[in-house]
Amino acid sequence: MPTVLGQNQYGKAETRVVRVTRDGPVHHIRDLNVSIALSGAMDDVHLSGSNARVLPTDTTKNTVFAFAKEYGVASPEGFAARLAHHFVTGQEAIGTARVRVEEYAWDRIPTPGPAGHSFVRSGRETRTAQVTFDGAGGRWQVLSGLKGLTVMNTTDSEFHGYVKDRYTTLPETRDRILATEVNACWRHAWDGGGEEDKDEWDEAFERTRGHLLGAFAETYSFSLQQTLYAMGSRVIEQTPGIDEIRLSLPNKHHFLADLAPFGLANDNEVYYTADRPYGLIEATVLREGATAAVPVDLTNLP
Amino acid sequence: MPTVLGQNQYGKAETRVVRVTRDGPVHHIRDLNVSIALSGAMDDVHLSGSNARVLPTDTTKNTVFAFAKEYGVASPEGFAARLAHHFVTGQEAIGTARVRVEEYAWDRIPTPGPAGHSFVRSGRETRTAQVTFDGAGGRWQVLSGLKGLTVMNTTDSEFHGYVKDRYTTLPETRDRILATEVNACWRHAWDGGGEEDKDEWDEAFERTRGHLLGAFAETYSFSLQQTLYAMGSRVIEQTPGIDEIRLSLPNKHHFLADLAPFGLANDNEVYYTADRPYGLIEATVLREGATAAVPVDLTNLP
Amino acid sequence: MPTVLGQNQYGKAETRVVRVTRDGPVHHIRDLNVSIALSGAMDDVHLSGSNARVLPTDTTKNTVFAFAKEYGVASPEGFAARLAHHFVTGQEAIGTARVRVEEYAWDRIPTPGPAGHSFVRSGRETRTAQVTFDGAGGRWQVLSGLKGLTVMNTTDSEFHGYVKDRYTTLPETRDRILATEVNACWRHAWDGGGEEDKDEWDEAFERTRGHLLGAFAETYSFSLQQTLYAMGSRVIEQTPGIDEIRLSLPNKHHFLADLAPFGLANDNEVYYTADRPYGLIEATVLREGATAAVPVDLTNLP
Amino acid sequence: MPTVLGQNQYGKAETRVVRVTRDGPVHHIRDLNVSIALSGAMDDVHLSGSNARVLPTDTTKNTVFAFAKEYGVASPEGFAARLAHHFVTGQEAIGTARVRVEEYAWDRIPTPGPAGHSFVRSGRETRTAQVTFDGAGGRWQVLSGLKGLTVMNTTDSEFHGYVKDRYTTLPETRDRILATEVNACWRHAWDGGGEEDKDEWDEAFERTRGHLLGAFAETYSFSLQQTLYAMGSRVIEQTPGIDEIRLSLPNKHHFLADLAPFGLANDNEVYYTADRPYGLIEATVLREGATAAVPVDLTNLP
Repeated sequence: MPTVLGQNQYGKAETRVVRVTRDGPVHHIRDLNVSIALSGAMDDVHLSGSNARVLPTDTTKNTVFAFAKEYGVASPEGFAARLAHHFVTGQEAIGTARVRVEEYAWDRIPTPGPAGHSFVRSGRETRTAQVTFDGAGGRWQVLSGLKGLTVMNTTDSEFHGYVKDRYTTLPETRDRILATEVNACWRHAWDGGGEEDKDEWDEAFERTRGHLLGAFAETYSFSLQQTLYAMGSRVIEQTPGIDEIRLSLPNKHHFLADLAPFGLANDNEVYYTADRPYGLIEATVLREGATAAVPVDLTNLP
Repeated sequence: MPTVLGQNQYGKAETRVVRVTRDGPVHHIRDLNVSIALSGAMDDVHLSGSNARVLPTDTTKNTVFAFAKEYGVASPEGFAARLAHHFVTGQEAIGTARVRVEEYAWDRIPTPGPAGHSFVRSGRETRTAQVTFDGAGGRWQVLSGLKGLTVMNTTDSEFHGYVKDRYTTLPETRDRILATEVNACWRHAWDGGGEEDKDEWDEAFERTRGHLLGAFAETYSFSLQQTLYAMGSRVIEQTPGIDEIRLSLPNKHHFLADLAPFGLANDNEVYYTADRPYGLIEATVLREGATAAVPVDLTNLP
Repeated sequence: MPTVLGQNQYGKAETRVVRVTRDGPVHHIRDLNVSIALSGAMDDVHLSGSNARVLPTDTTKNTVFAFAKEYGVASPEGFAARLAHHFVTGQEAIGTARVRVEEYAWDRIPTPGPAGHSFVRSGRETRTAQVTFDGAGGRWQVLSGLKGLTVMNTTDSEFHGYVKDRYTTLPETRDRILATEVNACWRHAWDGGGEEDKDEWDEAFERTRGHLLGAFAETYSFSLQQTLYAMGSRVIEQTPGIDEIRLSLPNKHHFLADLAPFGLANDNEVYYTADRPYGLIEATVLREGATAAVPVDLTNLP
Repeated sequence: MPTVLGQNQYGKAETRVVRVTRDGPVHHIRDLNVSIALSGAMDDVHLSGSNARVLPTDTTKNTVFAFAKEYGVASPEGFAARLAHHFVTGQEAIGTARVRVEEYAWDRIPTPGPAGHSFVRSGRETRTAQVTFDGAGGRWQVLSGLKGLTVMNTTDSEFHGYVKDRYTTLPETRDRILATEVNACWRHAWDGGGEEDKDEWDEAFERTRGHLLGAFAETYSFSLQQTLYAMGSRVIEQTPGIDEIRLSLPNKHHFLADLAPFGLANDNEVYYTADRPYGLIEATVLREGATAAVPVDLTNLP
C-alpha cells in the first residue's frame, strides 16, 4: 500500500460545562469549555473502520460531566490534568491525551441582602489551559494562557528608524497609539509530582496576567516587538515556575484622522481604528537554557 | 410607471472613532462605532441616478471625525444628537437623521507611578444610543440601551404549571438555573430643549444598568417573562425620565447533565449549556399612559 | 401600578432541523433553521409568573420536529404556514404566530454510480421566509427573501455630481467597482386561500433571485440607490404576486490601491477592500397603490 | 540577562486585494486575503526597540498591491511564491518568509448580452495556499488546501463495535447521517525549480478537491476516521506531486429527533443538528517513505 498513517488524534471538542458548588446560600461557579484529543494505537480504525480500540467521543464528553461532579473544578489546569490522566491510564490503546480548557469569568451581582447566587459575565478575555499527559514516558506538559485581552497606550509609543525600500510609504512617528490584543501561552515547569492545588494555579494565573498588563503599561515603546519582549521577559523573571512564554500580538492600528481638509488640527486626539490588515507580531521568550515547547501558532490554543 | 419608492435611507455605517482627551499626563478616551442614516427628498437618486441632492456617505464619515475634534464626546447620546441636528439643518434635502452609536468600555491599567495613559478593554456588553431628529416637526427621539449583558441565577428559579399539548415533553422543575443575555433599549422623555450634559446621560446609563442587574438578581422567578417584567418595571418606576423600555432576553439554557448512568446523583451541580435552539422572550414595558415607540426588533439597535 | 405591558412575544428560536426524504436510493434533503414567536393574552405570565396560558418554548421546538415528519417540508413558506396555523388554532391564548425560517442550500456530489445520498453545502446566501398568521382576523402575511448574496460589477458604475459641503473630500469617479451584499425581503399577495404548493414557492424564489441578479448585472449605475431601485422594480414588474420588496445593500467598498509612489499606474486593476465603515443603502419599492408592510430593518429577517 | 528570544516572526496579516484583468469587455478577477510573516536576525528590535533591520509591516502590505499590478495573480501559490522570494532576497535581515493566501471564489452572472463584468460570490469553502521560502537553504515549501467544505452522506454510515467503559451511554447504529466540514492541507513535492504556471496550480487544486469529494461520497463508512483515511489516501494515490495531506474533520452531528412521545416513527427522516460539542477527527496521510511536514493544527492554515 503506497500510503501510511501519520500523526492522528480524536476526541470531543467544546463540551460546555458549568459546575455549581453550593456553600449554603453562597454559590460558586466555574464555567468551562473542554476539548479532548486522544492518540495512540489507532491504525485499525483508519484503515479498516474497526472501532475495537476506539472510546467514543461521546464517552469523553460524558466523562467531563462525571468528573465535574466527582472531583469538582478546583482550576482549569487541575481539571484538565485529571481528565488526561484518566484517559491514558484507563485505555490501553490511548498513549497520549491532550485536554484544552477555556474558562469564562463571572462576577457576583451585588445585592442588598445576603444572597450569593447571582452572577454577571465579566472580562473580555478568555483564560486558557492545556494539559498533555504522555503515558509511555509519564511526562506532563502544562500550558496556561489567555486570549482576547485588549490593551491600549495613548502615548509613550514611537515608530521610526526602520528600513525603507521601494515600497515604503509609511511616515515615521514620535507619538502614536499602541493597541493590541494579547494572546499568550506560558509553560509551567511542572512534573505532575504532587496534587494540583486550587490556589496554586489560580493565583499563578492572576499574577501572570498582572505582569503582562504591568509590562505593557510601563514600557516606553519604540516597536511592538520591544513591548512584546518586555511583557514576556517580565513574566519569566518574576515567576520561577515559568520557563517559556509565547505571545501573539496583532497590532490594532489606530490611525490619525486627517482633519486638515476641514481646517482643523489633530493633536493626537481623533483616531480611526482599522479592522484589516493588521501587523501581527509573534515571539517566544525563554528562560536562558530552557528548550522551547509551546506551539508557534497560538490561535488554536487551546 | 407601476412602481413607487417607499421608505428609504442611506448613510455611512460603522465609523469607528476613538477620541482621546489629554488632561496633562492623564488621558481620557471614548471609543465609539457610529452609524448614520439620512432620509428625505431622495426620489431622484433612486429613479434616475442623479446625485444632486446626495451628500456622500463618505462625507458623513468625515463629519464624525471632525465633530469628535470640534466638540469632543461628552456622551454617546450627546454626540449622536449633535450629528443628527447637523445633517438635518445643513442639507435641505435631508428631512430626518438617525444616528446610532455603540460605545465600548475601557478601564485604566493600574500602575505604580502617576501614569494615566494605559487602558484595558472591560465589560462584555456594549452600550448603545440612538438619536433621531425630524427636522420638519423639530422632534427628537433619544434611545439608550445595552446589549450582550449576560447574567445568571443559580437558584430561585422555577418553571411549572404550563400548558401541555400533544407535543409537550418538558418536565416541570422547582429549581433551575436562569441565565440570559440582556438586550435592552429605553426611551427618554427628552425634548431636546437644553444642552445635553455629560453627567446626565452617563449617570442615567449607569443607574439604569444597575436597576436591570438588581431586578434580575432579586426576583424569585417562575418564568423568564416575569423576570423580564420585573426588570423593565423597576427601570420605569425608578426613573422619572424613562417612559418605555424594550427587553429581548434569549433564554441561555443550562440543562442538568444526566449522571444516573454512572451511578452519580446530580444535585443541581453539573449543567451543560446549549447554543441552539433557545427560548426568546421579548416585551415592552411602558409607563401607564405612554405610547410605545421603541422598535420591536432589538437586534439591530443600534 | 404605574407600568403596563406592551407588545410581547415568545417562542423557541433557531431550531435546526434536517428532513430527509428517501425515494429509493435517491435521497432529498431540506435543511432549515426555524424560529417561532407567539403572542396573545399573556399578561399573567409577565405580571405574576403564572404559566397557565404558556405553551413551553420546548413544545414549540418539538412541534417543528413532529411536523417535519408528519407533513414533510415542501417549501420554507409552506412549512412555516403550517406551523403558524397550528399554534394559533391550537391554543386559545395565542392570537398571532410568526414563524421565521432560514434555508441552507445543498448540491449533490456527482458520483460515477447511481448513488444519490451525498451532498455538499452550496451557495453563500441564505434563503429566508417569514409567515405570520393572525387568528382574530384570519389574516396571513408571507414574506420571502434572501441574505448574504454578494455581487460585484467591475465596471459600468460611476459616482459624481453629489453635494459637496465643508466635510466633503471624496473625489468623483467615472469608473468604479460596485459591490454589495444583497439582503432582500419581498411580500406575497397571498391570502392563504388554498393549499401551498411546493413548486409555487420554490419556483417563485428562484425567479425572484434571478431578477435581482439580472437587474444588478444589467444596470449601468450612477448610484447604488439607482441600482437598488432597478433591482426592486424589476421584481415587482415581472411578478404579479409580489407587491412590495425591501432591499438593504451595504456598499462593499473597493478602493483603488495608490501605486503612484512605486512608479506604477493603476488602470482600475488593483483594489483593496475595506470592512468598515461602509455605505448602507436601504429602500422599499412598492407596486403603485400597495401599502408598505415589510419591516424597515432587514438584518433580523428572519 | 536571564531571558532569551526564541522563534519570532512579524508581518502584515489579512491584506485584502482584488485583481481585475480586463480582456476587452470580459473581465477576470482574483480575490485574495494575503498574510505575510517574516523572520530572521531580529534580536535588536525585540531587545532595544531598534528598527534598523525592520521592514515595516505597512511596506509588506504595499508590496502585495504592487506585485498584484506588476505580475498579476496567476494562482494563489504562484503569487505567494513571488512575494516570499522577494522579501528573502531583498532584505539581508530576513532569512525566511511565509506567505499565506486565502482565495474566495466568484462565478459570472449570466446576462443576455455579451457582458462579462458581473460576478456573484460562490461556494462556501475557502481555497488556501501557504508558501515558505528559506533563503539560507534555498528551500521551498508549498502547501495548498481548503477549509469550510461541508459535506453530508444521508446513509451508508454505521458506528458500532467501539470500546465501552463506565461512562459510555451512546447506542450503536447501523445507519446514520455522516456530515463534516472538510479542512485539508496538502504538501506539494515542488523544489521551486521552474516558473510556476497558472494551469498547474489551479488544475491541481480542482483535481484534489474532486478527489476529496469523490472519496467522501463513495466510501461506505464505519467510522469518520476510516472516511478520513480514504479521502487522504485517494489524494496521495491519484496525485504524483502530493506526498502528504492533513485533514481536520469536525463531526457535524445529526441526531435523530425522538418522535416516540408523539406516537410517530422516525425512519431516519427527521434530524436535529447540534453546534457543540462535536467530535473532532484529525490525521495525516503520507506517501510511504515521505516525512511529515504539514502542521498538525490546521485551523490557522493559512
